[in-house]
Amino acid sequence: LSPRLTSFIGSQSHQPAESTWFVTKMTTICGEDLPGVSVVQITPKAIPVLPAEAVWRLHGVSSNLRYTTRGEKQELTQRQVALGRPEATRGVLIPIRKNSAWWDLTQEERREIFEEQSRHTTIGLKYLPAIARKLHHCRDLGSAEPFDFVTQFDFAPADEGAFDDLLEALRGTLEWTYIDREVEIRLTQP
Amino acid sequence: LSPRLTSFIGSQSHQPAESTWFVTKMTTICGEDLPGVSVVQITPKAIPVLPAEAVWRLHGVSSNLRYTTRGEKQELTQRQVALGRPEATRGVLIPIRKNSAWWDLTQEERREIFEEQSRHTTIGLKYLPAIARKLHHCRDLGSAEPFDFVTQFDFAPADEGAFDDLLEALRGTLEWTYIDREVEIRLTQP
Repeated sequence: LSPRLTSFIGSQSHQPAESTWFVTKMTTICGEDLPGVSVVQITPKAIPVLPAEAVWRLHGVSSNLRYTTRGEKQELTQRQVALGRPEATRGVLIPIRKNSAWWDLTQEERREIFEEQSRHTTIGLKYLPAIARKLHHCRDLGSAEPFDFVTQFDFAPADEGAFDDLLEALRGTLEWTYIDREVEIRLTQP
Repeated sequence: LSPRLTSFIGSQSHQPAESTWFVTKMTTICGEDLPGVSVVQITPKAIPVLPAEAVWRLHGVSSNLRYTTRGEKQELTQRQVALGRPEATRGVLIPIRKNSAWWDLTQEERREIFEEQSRHTTIGLKYLPAIARKLHHCRDLGSAEPFDFVTQFDFAPADEGAFDDLLEALRGTLEWTYIDREVEIRLTQP
């Protein structure tokens, strides 16, 4: 299995484990609901056999950058931090699906909307290094997936307000008008 | 399973089937060999349980365009034909893998090499509609895959020389210096 794969298993009950996050809130932003769960187990590998208590499983692979210029990549690399800092006890998962109008655009048209119009990377940069982020790609997994991407965030409790501002800014963009399913899953670790 | 998935099963013997192509020649262009087989079954779906005679299985998904401008897309759409014309009894599969230097480039740097320097789409357009082509993406499948892409071609026997010219042109480009594994599998149907 791909070393770039991460699995997200949503359950109502759980075996305690280091990789377990507790769900504090699930909100359907648009499209179909994802069934409610109380815990999400996040593991950097495939889970071929789901535990009996699993309600859903999402998974995705990290991949090459698609909308980032060399200058933007350098800025991101200098300022971003990896998931998993000890103080980052708040997490958020945002699975999204984009509509066929988005996928029918050419690369340059998608980039124009993503950055020149929507400032996706520019907005994200404002919240670095406080908000750590990792993008998981589901669209080309080969299995029929309910979402195109899962974006995973973590941050310290004091930065939750900044994260809310980041989300509000992104959801007001032209890019977001191409999203036809989005669920927000707020997580915490004790 | 994804409706965009195609499986390629290489075997030494076979049950006759409409989807079976006979291998006339396998050539390793660079990197590790793929074991020799006498037939390849090409099916537009996943094959969860491989037949006992299978030697290898490749698979990939068709996906959105990554290096094509709106103008190039319009030209391609006007001129290209789908795989499977009755006269297209010659086929070729070319699995390739690109090295980490390629994947570490930004999108704009990859596009610059792919088209402005290597003329990948421009070269391919010269051979339309004679040479039909479909690109299958393996890199983000979630399984550990031996190749990043499988490109599938078919054409009438009279166009085999044109196909050889196309391959020679592409293999002389800057883009091809980023390929670290490539196998060429020539196929025929009776």
